[in-house]
Amino acid sequence: MGTTVAPHSLLHPRQDRDLPARLAKSCAAHRGVHTMDEYKSWYLERRRLLRIETQRIPFTALDGWSFAKDTGNLGHDSGGRYSIEGMRILAWTGPICEWYQPIVNQPGVSLYGLIVKERQGVLPCLVRGATEPGHPEVLELFPTVAATRADYARAHKSTPATYLDHFVGPDRGRVVVDVLQSAAGQWCYRMSQRNMIVEVTGDVPSHDGFVWLTFGQLQALLAGKMLSAGLRSLLSLLPPTPSGAKRGRSGDATPGALLPDSAVVSWLTEQRSYREVEVMPVPLNQVVGWHATGMEIARADGRYFSVIGVAGGGEHAEFSQPMIELRGVGLAAWVVKDFGGVPHVLARAGMESGLRDSVEIGPTVYCQPKEFERDTSAAMPLLLDYVQDADESRVRYNVVHTGDGGVFFHADCRYLIVEADDKLPAELPPDFAWIALGQLSDLIRQGNRVTLPARTLYACLNSLHLGLAEESR
Amino acid sequence: MGTTVAPHSLLHPRQDRDLPARLAKSCAAHRGVHTMDEYKSWYLERRRLLRIETQRIPFTALDGWSFAKDTGNLGHDSGGRYSIEGMRILAWTGPICEWYQPIVNQPGVSLYGLIVKERQGVLPCLVRGATEPGHPEVLELFPTVAATRADYARAHKSTPATYLDHFVGPDRGRVVVDVLQSAAGQWCYRMSQRNMIVEVTGDVPSHDGFVWLTFGQLQALLAGKMLSAGLRSLLSLLPPTPSGAKRGRSGDATPGALLPDSAVVSWLTEQRSYREVEVMPVPLNQVVGWHATGMEIARADGRYFSVIGVAGGGEHAEFSQPMIELRGVGLAAWVVKDFGGVPHVLARAGMESGLRDSVEIGPTVYCQPKEFERDTSAAMPLLLDYVQDADESRVRYNVVHTGDGGVFFHADCRYLIVEADDKLPAELPPDFAWIALGQLSDLIRQGNRVTLPARTLYACLNSLHLGLAEESR
Repeated sequence: MGTTVAPHSLLHPRQDRDLPARLAKSCAAHRGVHTMDEYKSWYLERRRLLRIETQRIPFTALDGWSFAKDTGNLGHDSGGRYSIEGMRILAWTGPICEWYQPIVNQPGVSLYGLIVKERQGVLPCLVRGATEPGHPEVLELFPTVAATRADYARAHKSTPATYLDHFVGPDRGRVVVDVLQSAAGQWCYRMSQRNMIVEVTGDVPSHDGFVWLTFGQLQALLAGKMLSAGLRSLLSLLPPTPSGAKRGRSGDATPGALLPDSAVVSWLTEQRSYREVEVMPVPLNQVVGWHATGMEIARADGRYFSVIGVAGGGEHAEFSQPMIELRGVGLAAWVVKDFGGVPHVLARAGMESGLRDSVEIGPTVYCQPKEFERDTSAAMPLLLDYVQDADESRVRYNVVHTGDGGVFFHADCRYLIVEADDKLPAELPPDFAWIALGQLSDLIRQGNRVTLPARTLYACLNSLHLGLAEESR
Repeated sequence: MGTTVAPHSLLHPRQDRDLPARLAKSCAAHRGVHTMDEYKSWYLERRRLLRIETQRIPFTALDGWSFAKDTGNLGHDSGGRYSIEGMRILAWTGPICEWYQPIVNQPGVSLYGLIVKERQGVLPCLVRGATEPGHPEVLELFPTVAATRADYARAHKSTPATYLDHFVGPDRGRVVVDVLQSAAGQWCYRMSQRNMIVEVTGDVPSHDGFVWLTFGQLQALLAGKMLSAGLRSLLSLLPPTPSGAKRGRSGDATPGALLPDSAVVSWLTEQRSYREVEVMPVPLNQVVGWHATGMEIARADGRYFSVIGVAGGGEHAEFSQPMIELRGVGLAAWVVKDFGGVPHVLARAGMESGLRDSVEIGPTVYCQPKEFERDTSAAMPLLLDYVQDADESRVRYNVVHTGDGGVFFHADCRYLIVEADDKLPAELPPDFAWIALGQLSDLIRQGNRVTLPARTLYACLNSLHLGLAEESR
């Protein structure tokens, strides 16, 4: 930003009062630069071009990757990529729990940046179609820019990545929002992503593989498996759509909530105070209970996840890398309910050992259900049955989305939004709280408060209020 | 908090609209339950009672403390107190810096809680007068409750600490504010404090050593060395006093600022993205460049700080413990300036290796000036001369306060607020930014955004706008 002392400069309003209406208009727009039919033709052509195939390979066949002699950590020889290391966790969750696990360590904040630019009174955004190693079967839409710290540090020097100059440096666009968010905290060590939306007024050159879509069109595409985790996280920065933020019955201009804002913040503060986690990086070869073969690093009982080697390629690229393979399809679910006409979600303070603050606001239920099918001794997460057995009439949203396909292999997760009924237990433990949609949105935009699956669920829920997701199913 | 499904419950307003006026009234009140003269008598009597003396002792004479055989870490045999350990730091601040240092490790969030209770239309708060090992010469005022995690975990069971039941459990008061904040990040490993103000409507019993004072009276006492670091941090949660938040020249109801809120947040996000720190706990006996004698752990060149043993006592207590001794009196300074009638501070994004997020919003200048007197090779912090050499007419505030006297030995710090003049460099590096007082206050109340010395400076600056600190000097 830099600072120039300009004593006579005019003050700016602290908030851009036109922005919410302009974003809402883009959310309501079913067509912008392209119609959905035009987009679909582009998508099919792009998918044909970028088709890739993958296969499991032994760790020894990974090109440029090796196990360090002293630590056993699995890293890339260049030092510029993630590595697979070990972690010892001590968690105070009432009794003290201790466990070891492998973890993905990628130092440096990644940037997920989205360009918006007004055209004919609407704000479309520029997204990129690409395939990732973790999901070779699907072409996904990504933010305009997805860059590691190494990428954007370079941007100050020679040849920046495509469009990066709109986010970094003197020519960057006007910031709409720019916050740090957590990533998958159960498997990644303190991984942090910067979520940034900028409005550009000057020319934006056309590049192959990019397409302009309105927020409304992107929200409609949330009805299928097409938006990458990074783009879904960016969509969660949009304020609640008008019908989602409708007024309370009191007729008050500011909609109320079951709990005042101060009580919601206090609930999160208390959960963070009580449920602390001490995380200690350890060498991968000291991770108790996990064993390496030539093809995978896994637990003897087959639980949780494994580290595998993956190679693949298509017309445009060849790659090989270690990846994380989870067990079965994950489940992230909100229980939702209107109170006094204001929609609320039943949030659970979720502890994920790799999170910087240990605890963030998570879904009502978030787990790998397969873990509980075969191991009857594991305690079922509260309300797992409740959301899985919900009658069709109460299911507002039910779509499988991809995980971060740069590190996770086929890490699909089912996102489920279920309306509460009178079978919901009247008393729930203190890690649950009802939060109004507007409160959740404010907390998301503060950064580092809401987990990635919960942010995705918010984006999905927000898209429903337009009726668009229903329409295009 | 817990959750009861109450479908017909009334919604609450998200914000308590009466609260700001009630807090402002307490800030404006020069007398509440007691006059300042009554308070001064109480203070002198209390100081006489709690007089303690301290002396340096060898580590071997510390009662219950010992160096671990394998790691060399200095800890208490009970395991329930802080320990002195080692830390290896890798910082990306342009070039990569690496260093080792001893660090204070106290797992668990400490609670600093303040009770307020309306009396005759004013909100006084309940504070405690006590002495700490680090500052035996001064009786300080502390929040109603200062409790470690062990203390408030016990509160769920048998005999809670005094007044703790107003903050924890079913009978707690109404939350005014409740956030997590950082502590001294240069010397403490990820130390976190919970700052909580609750309003109590029922009876509050009287206990020895506690006194009711209005926020206005506490702000007046900021003109001297009397308020503990924990209490100053709590005072920083108060919104800007009316004259501090005065309207912009535009006549707009919401005062403007030099930068919109989104640009201020983006500046902090960028600083946090670029200036990352990797912190690795290491055994104390592996801290390169530091050496232990029987009396201290220090560097050969005498820089930064040392770890020493301290014993002491008075009529009521005896103690011995390791403590951190800094070099000379610290300096924390704001450069301030009105833009368009709205007061702004010149903030610097401060990197402190022990902070959870590495970078928070800090003072314009924060250092131990003595470091630069004797070592001419060390780079002087930018603007250190500018604030130290400021003409008296530009100095708005200049008071020495104590540090955290539970861990730091005589860690005094000078808090200085200086008005900018035309000698301030017109261009400053990107880690500086002008932030309006109202923006700073909002960021403080979000938690984990603003460093402890910067929060203290905000509390001091906020007290000035009442003219109270001036008046009682």
